[in-house]
Amino acid sequence: MSDIEVTLPDGSVLSVPEGSTVADVAYEIGPGLGADTVAGVVDGDLVEKATPVEDGASLVIVTDGSDEYLRVLRHSAAHVFAQALQRRHPEAKLTIGPPTDDGFYYDVTDVDLDRADLDGIEAEMADIVAEDYEIERFERSREEALEVYEDNPYKRDILETEAAGEDPVSFYRQDGFEDLCQGPHVESTGEIGAFKLLNISSAYWRGDEENDQLTRVYGTAFEEESDLEEFLEMREEAKERDHRKIGREMDLFSIPDHSPGCAHFHPNGMTIRRELEEYIRDKNGELGYEEVWTPELNKAELWKPTGHYDNFTAEGEMFNWVQDDTEYGLKPMNCANHASIYAEGQYSYRDLPVRFSEFGTIYRNEKSGELSGLLRVRGLTQDDGHAFVRPDQLEGEITTALRVIEDIYGHFDLEVLYKLETKGDNAVGSDEIWGKATDALKGALESEGLDYDVEEGEAAFYGPKIGLDARDALGREWTIGTVQVDFNIPERLDLTYVGEDNAEHRPVMIHRALLGSFERFMGIAIEHFKGRFPLWLAPEQVRILPVSDDNLEYAERVAAELGEFRVEVEDRDMTVGRKIRAAHDDRVPYMLILGGNEEEAGTVSVRDRQERERNDVELEAFRRHLERERDEKRTEPKFVDEA
Amino acid sequence: MSDIEVTLPDGSVLSVPEGSTVADVAYEIGPGLGADTVAGVVDGDLVEKATPVEDGASLVIVTDGSDEYLRVLRHSAAHVFAQALQRRHPEAKLTIGPPTDDGFYYDVTDVDLDRADLDGIEAEMADIVAEDYEIERFERSREEALEVYEDNPYKRDILETEAAGEDPVSFYRQDGFEDLCQGPHVESTGEIGAFKLLNISSAYWRGDEENDQLTRVYGTAFEEESDLEEFLEMREEAKERDHRKIGREMDLFSIPDHSPGCAHFHPNGMTIRRELEEYIRDKNGELGYEEVWTPELNKAELWKPTGHYDNFTAEGEMFNWVQDDTEYGLKPMNCANHASIYAEGQYSYRDLPVRFSEFGTIYRNEKSGELSGLLRVRGLTQDDGHAFVRPDQLEGEITTALRVIEDIYGHFDLEVLYKLETKGDNAVGSDEIWGKATDALKGALESEGLDYDVEEGEAAFYGPKIGLDARDALGREWTIGTVQVDFNIPERLDLTYVGEDNAEHRPVMIHRALLGSFERFMGIAIEHFKGRFPLWLAPEQVRILPVSDDNLEYAERVAAELGEFRVEVEDRDMTVGRKIRAAHDDRVPYMLILGGNEEEAGTVSVRDRQERERNDVELEAFRRHLERERDEKRTEPKFVDEA
Repeated sequence: MSDIEVTLPDGSVLSVPEGSTVADVAYEIGPGLGADTVAGVVDGDLVEKATPVEDGASLVIVTDGSDEYLRVLRHSAAHVFAQALQRRHPEAKLTIGPPTDDGFYYDVTDVDLDRADLDGIEAEMADIVAEDYEIERFERSREEALEVYEDNPYKRDILETEAAGEDPVSFYRQDGFEDLCQGPHVESTGEIGAFKLLNISSAYWRGDEENDQLTRVYGTAFEEESDLEEFLEMREEAKERDHRKIGREMDLFSIPDHSPGCAHFHPNGMTIRRELEEYIRDKNGELGYEEVWTPELNKAELWKPTGHYDNFTAEGEMFNWVQDDTEYGLKPMNCANHASIYAEGQYSYRDLPVRFSEFGTIYRNEKSGELSGLLRVRGLTQDDGHAFVRPDQLEGEITTALRVIEDIYGHFDLEVLYKLETKGDNAVGSDEIWGKATDALKGALESEGLDYDVEEGEAAFYGPKIGLDARDALGREWTIGTVQVDFNIPERLDLTYVGEDNAEHRPVMIHRALLGSFERFMGIAIEHFKGRFPLWLAPEQVRILPVSDDNLEYAERVAAELGEFRVEVEDRDMTVGRKIRAAHDDRVPYMLILGGNEEEAGTVSVRDRQERERNDVELEAFRRHLERERDEKRTEPKFVDEA
Repeated sequence: MSDIEVTLPDGSVLSVPEGSTVADVAYEIGPGLGADTVAGVVDGDLVEKATPVEDGASLVIVTDGSDEYLRVLRHSAAHVFAQALQRRHPEAKLTIGPPTDDGFYYDVTDVDLDRADLDGIEAEMADIVAEDYEIERFERSREEALEVYEDNPYKRDILETEAAGEDPVSFYRQDGFEDLCQGPHVESTGEIGAFKLLNISSAYWRGDEENDQLTRVYGTAFEEESDLEEFLEMREEAKERDHRKIGREMDLFSIPDHSPGCAHFHPNGMTIRRELEEYIRDKNGELGYEEVWTPELNKAELWKPTGHYDNFTAEGEMFNWVQDDTEYGLKPMNCANHASIYAEGQYSYRDLPVRFSEFGTIYRNEKSGELSGLLRVRGLTQDDGHAFVRPDQLEGEITTALRVIEDIYGHFDLEVLYKLETKGDNAVGSDEIWGKATDALKGALESEGLDYDVEEGEAAFYGPKIGLDARDALGREWTIGTVQVDFNIPERLDLTYVGEDNAEHRPVMIHRALLGSFERFMGIAIEHFKGRFPLWLAPEQVRILPVSDDNLEYAERVAAELGEFRVEVEDRDMTVGRKIRAAHDDRVPYMLILGGNEEEAGTVSVRDRQERERNDVELEAFRRHLERERDEKRTEPKFVDEA
């Protein structure tokens, strides 16, 4: 028997006998690893440990406690759910039940389920787990498999699409329950340490609204009960922070049915958006960006030379249509319009960098099933910017952009994570220009001393980029802005500047967004701050609570003195206690409680959002504090602390 | 012979014998009028004086020197042009040749014309005018007319459409030249006191791009040579003020081929737009408007309940399309989205007025042939606002809007003309609610003591409005903002508020735009100011001109001191004379000329856009003046004057 070669994650190459399985390779590395092995990742695909490895494959061994193991365990939990479901509802038909980042789901049909049913199924699952049934792989011929699923058109569909070429096909079985499945799975149901069914929703077969509607049951599973508890707490916290819920409570925005994925900003939300806009406008000014405005509507031909048209229409991601014999589109990005403004001008080497910024609204035809509040939208306004620079200015320009990003995110207590995304399969342009652009990005990251991950092949088709993720108060990571180098658009649109040598040269284009978009950033900020916005962003900054109607006039006078802030006087007929609760509910940073004592002394009593109080305060001292807290963009009220 | 009755412009009714012509009626009124009569307007149609009047008709007698007479004269001038053309180019085919507000045109074909040809034709026209040929009406049978135009498909088309029911049909003739024509005309070619052929362009038969392309020759004509001269001077001045020309010179905006009718604002134009935006934002704040943001993209269903969908799609005025089985549209107005935000809330009588403002970008599918720079566009950003008020607040709210409009336009030296537009044929809603709304508008106009014209039947389909025209420096009138009352949308969308009686009531909606749109207002402002913008709007407010490179460092220091303004230092290598000319060409309000004397004394020499100079100026005094001139939004530099 001849040997084959397998590449391990550290780059080393191991020779093993032909026919070796994942487990065999693990034992070859060491008996401890062999014993702990639960699955493998071969050339990027998760496979069961009994899978033979081909010559030249790359292999990651999956053991207990790894993320991959958790996926395997959750996949098994999906099978346990399916078995439990069929014990209680034999009429139910199974379709697909994959693991996800948070757990698993199973799409089923021919059964009506509610939360009470889930409780019963959970009890049944607990029995199956307690019995610790062995989970084993077996095979059936195609013919036999099609017969087994005679009454299940979904499984037959899978056999005729994904599994079209396979004969025999792979099944998994536990305690007589069996399911068409590629695996891998844990060895027995007892390995599932903790699980929970989370909720029921509806889904379409293969995600297509034209197909049958199915019932989707979401669940999750972990090795340890404590992990499940932590997950559920986090989930509860995330629910309370849900920006759609807080958005309604604070009347920040709505996404009406007539505009799927397109937020309407209500006055309160618009206040926040306007503050963000002014902040970024100032930053852009400091960076030498000049603001422009370009239309959403353009002829589709605008995006053909740049390659965007083919790229965006291939997946139907653009809004485009033919009217009066002309093909129109809504801009899915601002760069082509900015390049067209550049092309109208004549620039010399001394004029560069030329920098255009725009709060540019773009539209992308995201599938309706993928829309999610402000976080996944169709219409978004980017704080976009494009700099046209000489090659020798490239790294310096990127460095400045990174510096300002660090500064901005600091004001939101958001940690920024940097990812360098490199050339992918659909890239346009030569390896040489991609290499130069990638080097400039790397150089800037390194000169700023920033840590970054490299994501090979993840860049947009027109150039490498630094992707920015923000880590929020719950430790969740959100994709936000971007800094991107583009040698391609200047080439394709023949953009030039006149060099010192009087000849025409090609500028380099940098695409850059600081917050990303108002929509997405606001969604993140709402959840990160749980609606308790920093003073400078809060739609209502101070609420004045007169103890009784007698103090109303004094309240109005104090409000007038604070006229440069967003101040409301609470004049509804309710007790002071209720007024305070209402202000807390509305997440107002500061309350001023004004009764007879305060009115007599001409002072105010300050209460902050953290329920800290301070009495006998001179209004002017408070006003000065407000100014400082606002102008310094502090994230939490601090007045009472600083007393 | 029995008598018929004719109503005259003063409302009086005259009895005249049946069969009386326009001229007969004029002689009946008085022999002087009879002799001066050149035509008549019967029931709104211009007709020749020999036309018999029907019983019950309204009649205006047209005499020399009136606007109607000028139209008649220009129509005759078009015939003179046609005759002259055919003398020199017998192969040319005639199509239509109507009078316009500025003169006339004739669309011709089968002939190649350039400016030199026009000069020759003008000479020929002068001969025809000098010969003073009689212009006479005659008739031919349809059959004969069709024969005459055997080789002219355009005239035959007219005979088969506009003149389909007529037999015989009317012709006009002078010196053997004849033309199918309804008239009326002046009596002889000698009445044309002065004329000029202006330019050649192309046009499509019946304005439809699918039809044959024709050559359009524009001309004008007047009774007196002096009127023609004045017209040509004004035309020259208007050409110099053309906002497209100045827009290019000052690099304010472009309208690239890939976005017909959709302006791209370049940095200089965006500076002006941003200043206007901030100004209007402040005004909106004072008026109690709360800013919102709503998306351009919506499902078409949004505009169905309001009636906008039918109204806008009937003429193809909306951008709308079907994609993924959904009909989408770009908002052609913001009101439906604002109403949807209102509908999300719950309001009591104490909360009203609720006022939403938005710098909302809308798109309308204007025909490409009708687009004209910034003045006739497809994409425009309105300074829009909608107030939802109680009926008792209606007139007060309109009054406040009118007051702020007077204030705003004063800062542009633009006179505002008010038009009250009333219910038209396509109106939705009852006479009663239209009556109430019209009364509120009238009341507000009158309480503000404003003059206004009533334009019967000119309102938009959903409510009566006050249309605003601005009269510019050349005396031209431009349609700008609007104040509009709407009882219909609240009814159709079932908008409510809770009254003092705890029952649901219907608010009234006021639509209101102050500048109208940034695009159109900027187009007007560029032409009105001839690019010489008031300091607060000027993209470059001060240019500093060092006399030599020795003074460059001082120039930079002075620029830094004026850092709150938009200041540039002229550092190109050229003489001071050329620097001054360049600054004048660029219409910069102020130049500071800094040489050795100024540097030694620590002063500046100020030169303004009107070429006035003042030396030995303390920089601080100039800076204070700049602040004042900017903050008071004065229209012209005044520093030197005020010395």
